Amino acid sequence: MGAFIDNFIEKIKEKRSHVVVGLDPDYDNIPEHLKKNATDSLADIGEVIFEFNCKIIDAVSDLVAAIKPQIAFYERYGIDGINAFVKTVSYGKQKGLIVIEDAKRNDIGSTAIAYSEGHIGRIDISGRRIPVFDVDAITLNPYLGSDGIMPFVKDAQDFQKGIFVLVKTSNKSSVEFQDIRVIENGNQHKLYEVVAGKVHEWGKSIIGKYGYSSVGAVVAATFPEDTKILRNLMPDTYFLVPGYGAQGGTAGDVINSFNKDGLGALINASRSINYAYKDSSKFDEHQFAEAAREAVIKMNKEINGSLQKNGLLNWSL
Amino acid sequence: MGAFIDNFIEKIKEKRSHVVVGLDPDYDNIPEHLKKNATDSLADIGEVIFEFNCKIIDAVSDLVAAIKPQIAFYERYGIDGINAFVKTVSYGKQKGLIVIEDAKRNDIGSTAIAYSEGHIGRIDISGRRIPVFDVDAITLNPYLGSDGIMPFVKDAQDFQKGIFVLVKTSNKSSVEFQDIRVIENGNQHKLYEVVAGKVHEWGKSIIGKYGYSSVGAVVAATFPEDTKILRNLMPDTYFLVPGYGAQGGTAGDVINSFNKDGLGALINASRSINYAYKDSSKFDEHQFAEAAREAVIKMNKEINGSLQKNGLLNWSL
Repeated sequence: MGAFIDNFIEKIKEKRSHVVVGLDPDYDNIPEHLKKNATDSLADIGEVIFEFNCKIIDAVSDLVAAIKPQIAFYERYGIDGINAFVKTVSYGKQKGLIVIEDAKRNDIGSTAIAYSEGHIGRIDISGRRIPVFDVDAITLNPYLGSDGIMPFVKDAQDFQKGIFVLVKTSNKSSVEFQDIRVIENGNQHKLYEVVAGKVHEWGKSIIGKYGYSSVGAVVAATFPEDTKILRNLMPDTYFLVPGYGAQGGTAGDVINSFNKDGLGALINASRSINYAYKDSSKFDEHQFAEAAREAVIKMNKEINGSLQKNGLLNWSL
Repeated sequence: MGAFIDNFIEKIKEKRSHVVVGLDPDYDNIPEHLKKNATDSLADIGEVIFEFNCKIIDAVSDLVAAIKPQIAFYERYGIDGINAFVKTVSYGKQKGLIVIEDAKRNDIGSTAIAYSEGHIGRIDISGRRIPVFDVDAITLNPYLGSDGIMPFVKDAQDFQKGIFVLVKTSNKSSVEFQDIRVIENGNQHKLYEVVAGKVHEWGKSIIGKYGYSSVGAVVAATFPEDTKILRNLMPDTYFLVPGYGAQGGTAGDVINSFNKDGLGALINASRSINYAYKDSSKFDEHQFAEAAREAVIKMNKEINGSLQKNGLLNWSL
């Protein structure tokens, strides 16, 4: 098995898609007919969420390389929600998809090791090394510095996994700290540029055969000018790009996330795909999976179209 | 029921203790006799962890106001580990302890709301509002700005809960970003000072009757000079102070975390209490709970002694 990022790139080319489908289940937005045998117990809610996810996965698995379940939407429902998360990860992998856990974990020392072992590595039980969550990649928060990242880099190397470190997030208040002006070696930058420099450094030891690192960065679609700067600072870093669709990012906005080789960016959409049936006059709630499929086809077309217009569409390996 | 921070202060005064006992279970460090009926299944590991925690809680519950389970050490063991976390939270509350979940959660918009609802607030199921993890307080990472914090502040207000925002962490590489020099309104600061200003601002709407906010800060024991600066920047903020004991912080180091009223700091130790039996010639592994108790008594004495020496010991309300 090759490096995480090499497998990912091969899957992107096979599917001809740079899209990642976020799976952010919200019980209130799940069609009523899926709930018909459910009580309001958390166990039943977990079952409904899992069924919903399976149907979305079935509808899109031939169209995209990856899914990104956001664990907050599962943790919210406690143990039963996390159980639905675990089953979703397993189902997605079974369908040949790469699974990115959006968890934004962060800690130091033995705590960072514990997170890394549990999510992407192996735990050690009496000398046996056991995978637990075993996702393909996880998102991380960098505020604690290298101590919080290096345990994950090690497990990414050892177990062919990936990480995506927050650099510039899609929300309005991301400017409060991420855009603050800092002085480093006498020069002025924004904080996110300093973080980008570190991400580039963390990724150097784990670059795959296509020139990209298995240490990626989260860089939002909603600040396209910042993206241009970050693309230059992290040439061999894959960007996971939130903010498309429901958060306002467009195919034009995300073009700066790509490199000249037509690679380097994974564009995520969650709500606009999960609940596409709500925005459509063509589909009713019984056709939520068809609506999700159509939304993904449209998104693939938009992004590939924008790449083509800019001379960046390239499916050869 | 009063504000989180008021209840906490009353409990601190009742117990005459500023100590928080971290519960960071590591299966390898748990005494062998607790494992005698256990296989290596994750379910059995979860049971052993829970039993270990209960015995530690029983041994220290009359000596301290609060426990702080670090969820990474439970997540590591998957669903069964998280189940042990949930049962530990419940057992600690039953014993009259305040439970701080060390989770360092961080996200934006509906995702931050999902985390907040699940951990400190209520989820909404068909109009019923249900608590899920229902911890008393949670630690948060500020890198995403106000959008990642305000949903928690709202739930802290609505449900008498608390939050502790990372400002300055105990690890060596915390300097990489947290200590970076920034320019704000023409003045130079360190980034952690800017974060401190925000924490102070976020906490203003939720100040209790003793003058402290239910929005606290994580400020490590390992940088006592930084603590002095931060104490001035956040006068009405309670500090959760990691880094005591195993990480090198001493009773002298933590004195800067306190205000002139002898309040304002919660000093956490985890490994040096949980596995005190390992550092002791007096106790064998069968007496791990007694060893933990003695370690807490010693820590209470050290911290209260240091406060007394500085004229800051004050148990009156």
